[in-house]
Amino acid sequence: MAGSSPAMTRMMESTWTLHPQLALDTAPAGDLPLARVLLANDANYPWLILVPRKPGLVELIDLEENEQVQLLGEIANAARALKNITKCDKLNIAALGNQVPQLHVHVIARRRHDAAWPKPVWGAAAASSYDPVARERFLTTLRSGLQIQALRD
Amino acid sequence: MAGSSPAMTRMMESTWTLHPQLALDTAPAGDLPLARVLLANDANYPWLILVPRKPGLVELIDLEENEQVQLLGEIANAARALKNITKCDKLNIAALGNQVPQLHVHVIARRRHDAAWPKPVWGAAAASSYDPVARERFLTTLRSGLQIQALRD
Repeated sequence: MAGSSPAMTRMMESTWTLHPQLALDTAPAGDLPLARVLLANDANYPWLILVPRKPGLVELIDLEENEQVQLLGEIANAARALKNITKCDKLNIAALGNQVPQLHVHVIARRRHDAAWPKPVWGAAAASSYDPVARERFLTTLRSGLQIQALRD
Repeated sequence: MAGSSPAMTRMMESTWTLHPQLALDTAPAGDLPLARVLLANDANYPWLILVPRKPGLVELIDLEENEQVQLLGEIANAARALKNITKCDKLNIAALGNQVPQLHVHVIARRRHDAAWPKPVWGAAAASSYDPVARERFLTTLRSGLQIQALRD
């Protein structure tokens, strides 16, 4: 599962912007070769969102086949890192996009005693605010696990 | 995205059985090289479930990397077929498994006027029974789109 070339990355990103609703609902962890990794602003669940940095995507099948494979590899990396960090009971992985059309993939660590278990997380419980220090600590651990760096402003 | 060899398929299937809850909630459409394709018993949404025919799987990342890529290809094929057949507004693709632990992937055709829109489908509306003739017609169209055959008893 090869990464994108720097030239390809620059070309992709020249016209891509994160959907404002996703920006509002998350904090950026950093960039994998194809996808930006975001942490959802909900301390109920360790909840990542991966957004391929290519404009105009709505469905998974809008990606070229090699990009789908790249995204799959990044989803798997994020899932493994999240599982290693959280020791969760179950991973939930989903591309829904009924409300925010920009293609994004949820990778969520679930625990048998979390706020929504065994239901899916969407709409199940009011979002819980992160303690800022706990969130920064989690982001640091996550960046280490995914070998990514904080985005520069 | 190569298929499994017949020998590998036989070996996998020798110990794999479909989880009884999935069997209860669906009708079989047929087998792709890795995954069994099921149609959920809920006429509210054209709703496929793909189940890799390999025993002991819980998470997507329990699959070997080449099997993950194979499953992704089958998910993409199922998603394209479902979109072509239903002309849906959005695809929802998800591996949750909080209630049924056997790895299974939902591929759901969503419409802006369906019973749950814009919410996810799980728990949103009581399942609606298929008219048996409409269900058989949909399964036939689906088998044609996916180039799969009805399972033999």
